Amino acid sequence: MKVSIVGATGYSGLELFRLLSTHREVEIAGLYSQSFKGENIGELYPYMQKIYNGDLRGFHAEKIMATSDCVFLATPSGVSKEIANPFIQANFPVIDLSGDFRLKNPKTYEKWYQKSAPKSEWLQQATYGLADLSPHYASHLIANPGCYATATLLGLAPLIQNDWVQPDSVIVDAKSGLSGAGKMNTKATHYVEANENMSVYKVNQHQHIPEVMQQLKIWNKKMQPIQFSTSLIPVTRGIMATIYAKPNKKITQQELFELYEFYYEKMAFIRVQPKNCFPDLRQVVGSNYCDIGLTYNEETGMIMIVSVIDNLLKGAAGQAVQNMNLFYQFNQSEGLRLSPVYL
Amino acid sequence: MKVSIVGATGYSGLELFRLLSTHREVEIAGLYSQSFKGENIGELYPYMQKIYNGDLRGFHAEKIMATSDCVFLATPSGVSKEIANPFIQANFPVIDLSGDFRLKNPKTYEKWYQKSAPKSEWLQQATYGLADLSPHYASHLIANPGCYATATLLGLAPLIQNDWVQPDSVIVDAKSGLSGAGKMNTKATHYVEANENMSVYKVNQHQHIPEVMQQLKIWNKKMQPIQFSTSLIPVTRGIMATIYAKPNKKITQQELFELYEFYYEKMAFIRVQPKNCFPDLRQVVGSNYCDIGLTYNEETGMIMIVSVIDNLLKGAAGQAVQNMNLFYQFNQSEGLRLSPVYL
Amino acid sequence: MKVSIVGATGYSGLELFRLLSTHREVEIAGLYSQSFKGENIGELYPYMQKIYNGDLRGFHAEKIMATSDCVFLATPSGVSKEIANPFIQANFPVIDLSGDFRLKNPKTYEKWYQKSAPKSEWLQQATYGLADLSPHYASHLIANPGCYATATLLGLAPLIQNDWVQPDSVIVDAKSGLSGAGKMNTKATHYVEANENMSVYKVNQHQHIPEVMQQLKIWNKKMQPIQFSTSLIPVTRGIMATIYAKPNKKITQQELFELYEFYYEKMAFIRVQPKNCFPDLRQVVGSNYCDIGLTYNEETGMIMIVSVIDNLLKGAAGQAVQNMNLFYQFNQSEGLRLSPVYL
Amino acid sequence: MKVSIVGATGYSGLELFRLLSTHREVEIAGLYSQSFKGENIGELYPYMQKIYNGDLRGFHAEKIMATSDCVFLATPSGVSKEIANPFIQANFPVIDLSGDFRLKNPKTYEKWYQKSAPKSEWLQQATYGLADLSPHYASHLIANPGCYATATLLGLAPLIQNDWVQPDSVIVDAKSGLSGAGKMNTKATHYVEANENMSVYKVNQHQHIPEVMQQLKIWNKKMQPIQFSTSLIPVTRGIMATIYAKPNKKITQQELFELYEFYYEKMAFIRVQPKNCFPDLRQVVGSNYCDIGLTYNEETGMIMIVSVIDNLLKGAAGQAVQNMNLFYQFNQSEGLRLSPVYL
Repeated sequence: MKVSIVGATGYSGLELFRLLSTHREVEIAGLYSQSFKGENIGELYPYMQKIYNGDLRGFHAEKIMATSDCVFLATPSGVSKEIANPFIQANFPVIDLSGDFRLKNPKTYEKWYQKSAPKSEWLQQATYGLADLSPHYASHLIANPGCYATATLLGLAPLIQNDWVQPDSVIVDAKSGLSGAGKMNTKATHYVEANENMSVYKVNQHQHIPEVMQQLKIWNKKMQPIQFSTSLIPVTRGIMATIYAKPNKKITQQELFELYEFYYEKMAFIRVQPKNCFPDLRQVVGSNYCDIGLTYNEETGMIMIVSVIDNLLKGAAGQAVQNMNLFYQFNQSEGLRLSPVYL
Repeated sequence: MKVSIVGATGYSGLELFRLLSTHREVEIAGLYSQSFKGENIGELYPYMQKIYNGDLRGFHAEKIMATSDCVFLATPSGVSKEIANPFIQANFPVIDLSGDFRLKNPKTYEKWYQKSAPKSEWLQQATYGLADLSPHYASHLIANPGCYATATLLGLAPLIQNDWVQPDSVIVDAKSGLSGAGKMNTKATHYVEANENMSVYKVNQHQHIPEVMQQLKIWNKKMQPIQFSTSLIPVTRGIMATIYAKPNKKITQQELFELYEFYYEKMAFIRVQPKNCFPDLRQVVGSNYCDIGLTYNEETGMIMIVSVIDNLLKGAAGQAVQNMNLFYQFNQSEGLRLSPVYL
Repeated sequence: MKVSIVGATGYSGLELFRLLSTHREVEIAGLYSQSFKGENIGELYPYMQKIYNGDLRGFHAEKIMATSDCVFLATPSGVSKEIANPFIQANFPVIDLSGDFRLKNPKTYEKWYQKSAPKSEWLQQATYGLADLSPHYASHLIANPGCYATATLLGLAPLIQNDWVQPDSVIVDAKSGLSGAGKMNTKATHYVEANENMSVYKVNQHQHIPEVMQQLKIWNKKMQPIQFSTSLIPVTRGIMATIYAKPNKKITQQELFELYEFYYEKMAFIRVQPKNCFPDLRQVVGSNYCDIGLTYNEETGMIMIVSVIDNLLKGAAGQAVQNMNLFYQFNQSEGLRLSPVYL
Repeated sequence: MKVSIVGATGYSGLELFRLLSTHREVEIAGLYSQSFKGENIGELYPYMQKIYNGDLRGFHAEKIMATSDCVFLATPSGVSKEIANPFIQANFPVIDLSGDFRLKNPKTYEKWYQKSAPKSEWLQQATYGLADLSPHYASHLIANPGCYATATLLGLAPLIQNDWVQPDSVIVDAKSGLSGAGKMNTKATHYVEANENMSVYKVNQHQHIPEVMQQLKIWNKKMQPIQFSTSLIPVTRGIMATIYAKPNKKITQQELFELYEFYYEKMAFIRVQPKNCFPDLRQVVGSNYCDIGLTYNEETGMIMIVSVIDNLLKGAAGQAVQNMNLFYQFNQSEGLRLSPVYL
């Protein structure tokens, strides 16, 4: 099978390339980049020398459909919706890593993204591909979830689906590495600004909030708005979502642990930590794992969940490849058997 | 006035030296270190060459009292209580940076520190020196607050003292740099372990919890146990305490902001941030400031407070010097007019 | 084929495991660790959960020989020589990552390692496995080169073998990440010590100097002692060796470039950079590549070479796997098709 | 005395403010910034809240001369020469931190800076203010040396002035933190690019080379071009210049050490390290010190010098204040009694 990557020079695009180039079922048909079309990727990114010798091509939907069987759009929100048209019309498989096709409600999109929404029918048609929890893929248009949303939803799923928490008690205090801020050169991403620092940003305003809420409400209609704080910590990769919630009934530490253990037991990429153990960030970096630790504090009556992922893998390119595997019914781990780069 | 520092080679001791050596009202009489007695500090710490040429002395209470007017104990919890005896007997001024004299209840001390408690009468006698909020110093024994406790209490004081929050709703998600873990060489402080990582530790078990609770209950008897999470982020210095709480009445963003503005207006070392601004960690590092940002989310009904300090200054040596200034009625900023080292 | 790893919980051992677990020609028969025998590796290193479920075994040479075809000794210098005996006696294939079998002269070993030397006949028998330049493996005992030595020798080989430089003019200014200092908790590896710092250590005294000199003299008898400085920079992985030398004849930039281009053209893991381009450290991290940039300064008459590797891969585990591939005549890239983790 | 700072929002300008605000002999008359004129510095840089409440002013030479006694130009190379005119005409004291007035030869300026040169007579008139070695200040125009140049020249002065080295043997391998790259948001300064990385840049092309050569030739006419490599390491502050040279006569380790000890004995800001000790970067960061370690390798016949400074202090703002102190015959340490921020 042949695949193409659009937006191949962004962080997610580069990771997609890295994963797909070791995938036994696919071959990379082309790398597309509007900003660097015609340039040699090995000259642009010296680490790619002797690995990929092709040139970057300017976007061309027909050429992509003629030469490949599936396309990954690793393009920014706002761009994907502009270029996806010919693929959707042709019912050509698209895995989109932007936020453009994640929300069902066009008005919600417009509110949070400050852009005009994609066609409503496309939004209805798209599958929200939270890969570990989405066994069926009806559509050819897969919206890959956001990085913060993935960590948060995987951390909350057992609690919310089983209706264990007070619906207005959920707080997410999430931390991300700098690769989450993208490759634009901004004040926030300047080394001198980010190094030896931690900063809170977009408090209650992050664009991943609506997709989290949309999914939580699908799982449990009672859910109320959650408190959602996002921050930058001085690492390149990784997201840690620390989640607090109050149970809506009497529970024990042991019951909570068993809820998660049982729920995630057979899922290859989710690793519930032993009792009283919390994952650190690095134990998933470089891999497609989501590791989850949890505790119930009897004194305060508070549940605490810590969910960690690599934002570029499980939070972007890894989950996208997993979505492709599921869509084509390949082994879901193909191309993703990555041991974390712990040191 | 002459002062001595015991435990001068720990992180807090070194910072005390740095601050006191520019203080116009005091002279450093001696640096004491049991582990390095007899050694030259410039050889041990080359950055001190041409700054301090004296040798480190072995602890000797009588010598300290004979040569100085005040002693700083920058010794670990468990050590301070063992060596403080002669000073307390003699009513000699002690500023202790350990946790040994912070708690009033000996049983609480024994539970959280896993050590036998200091004499109960000493605990009663000690002043808990939360410097910005403690104008009167009745005792010669000042217990300098813990770093996490300082960031948390300064972040919560206006809310709790004015009884604005539901007493069982407080959550503190606190992050600290590695200097907070001390200078012991452990797995957790190994560069390869801490770098590019974030880890949660001592969840609901940190020994600063009881001093926070003790103070919150002094301010407001209704207070219930708080959820308190501590974590390490890969920076050398700094603590960010992110605090969540639910109001016990209808409030607005503006009222919340005014509460803090008014409360902290005249305090030299507390800087409430403009509306919708949160402090980043580095804007206080290298200084004695505590910067506080806040917001009220009308949709979730949640207050969020971000309080940042330099754990070695406002969270240790800086506050200790401020306590000395207040005790001796010097200008409280003397020795502490430090602009943050923002870059 | 089956392989065992002794010293599996050190940094090199963990990396060996990561590489070998994706190698199509081998199966891992056992992980051995004296310090952690009997422990579950997933509990010890949570990042290994769901990846390897076996327990760590105490060292047992007979068991290893009974269950595997080849053993990797990822043990410290001084330990390998103590445990290698039964394997060498049995002519059982050993790939040793320590410094114990790299030097031919026992006296040189004793001078630089401050330990009694292994048997002289073993030293004579061992192959110094500088993998990219060692096509023939006569011996069952392979001494994997040191990390600094690998970066330096690959950087110097074309110049020295072709006798282009003044034999007393070579200076190596090498920088290493902290993983090079090993997993011992020391003052030098404490985060607060290493972070935001750079330090020079073992100047002209590093134990990799004699293996570099031994190899340089094999290549060119005229070679004189080289100046060799080693330092730590605040990164986890990576070595950059900056090499200066004066040519012994008139050369041009173009000739120098062609010398390297031609020499390394067909070598899969060595990437000579385009003219006027120097590699940065990260462009090889996570891979088995050695990237080399070079320039000749006509004004000063000085050649400058920059050679970068991942110290744990090309400088340890990666090269060890490459040596195994060469020894068994597998494809030399098997298990090593790793794209650098550039971001 | 009153001083103004032009370019107050750059890294050097901010540091100048920090130093001068504690200087007992001066008062800050105004902060000037063309890019942020009219803005409040506390809003722009929250760390400055409650420290400086004035607004930033647009550049206005007459206003500066009317309100102050001395001006610091913390403006980029190419800008200083454009705005310095009225000050120079009026013989008003200028301390310029850019490269514009450091070189005597206009053609050299044009070659290295790729800009038209300042008036030749201004270049002749300017004092190159290598503060520790420049006791006499004839001119009102002081050119503050570059950061790399300062570390290199202080490291080499005793050797070159005493004619100890072969004039074509000097190699400087210098490393700098990211603040040296300035506050522009570029690919090189993006956190994801710089973190966990080290990169070589401007090899033999750095614009500090000509001022080093100019000074070395003043000290010793025989000096030939030096090899000068510059690189970025992932720290915010600090420069380490590692210098290699061959002696032109028989020397011993002891003689070399005594040469430096004697030369720098009385200089407050230069600290020659004890025998066999090299300074690490952090032991000067936050201070105006230059620490120098040295060794002579009898086997290779090579001298090695390691010189470390804080690039924003001794390499910029600190030396500028020292130059002001010397010019006005204040105590040269006033405003500069900063203990390094070692942790």
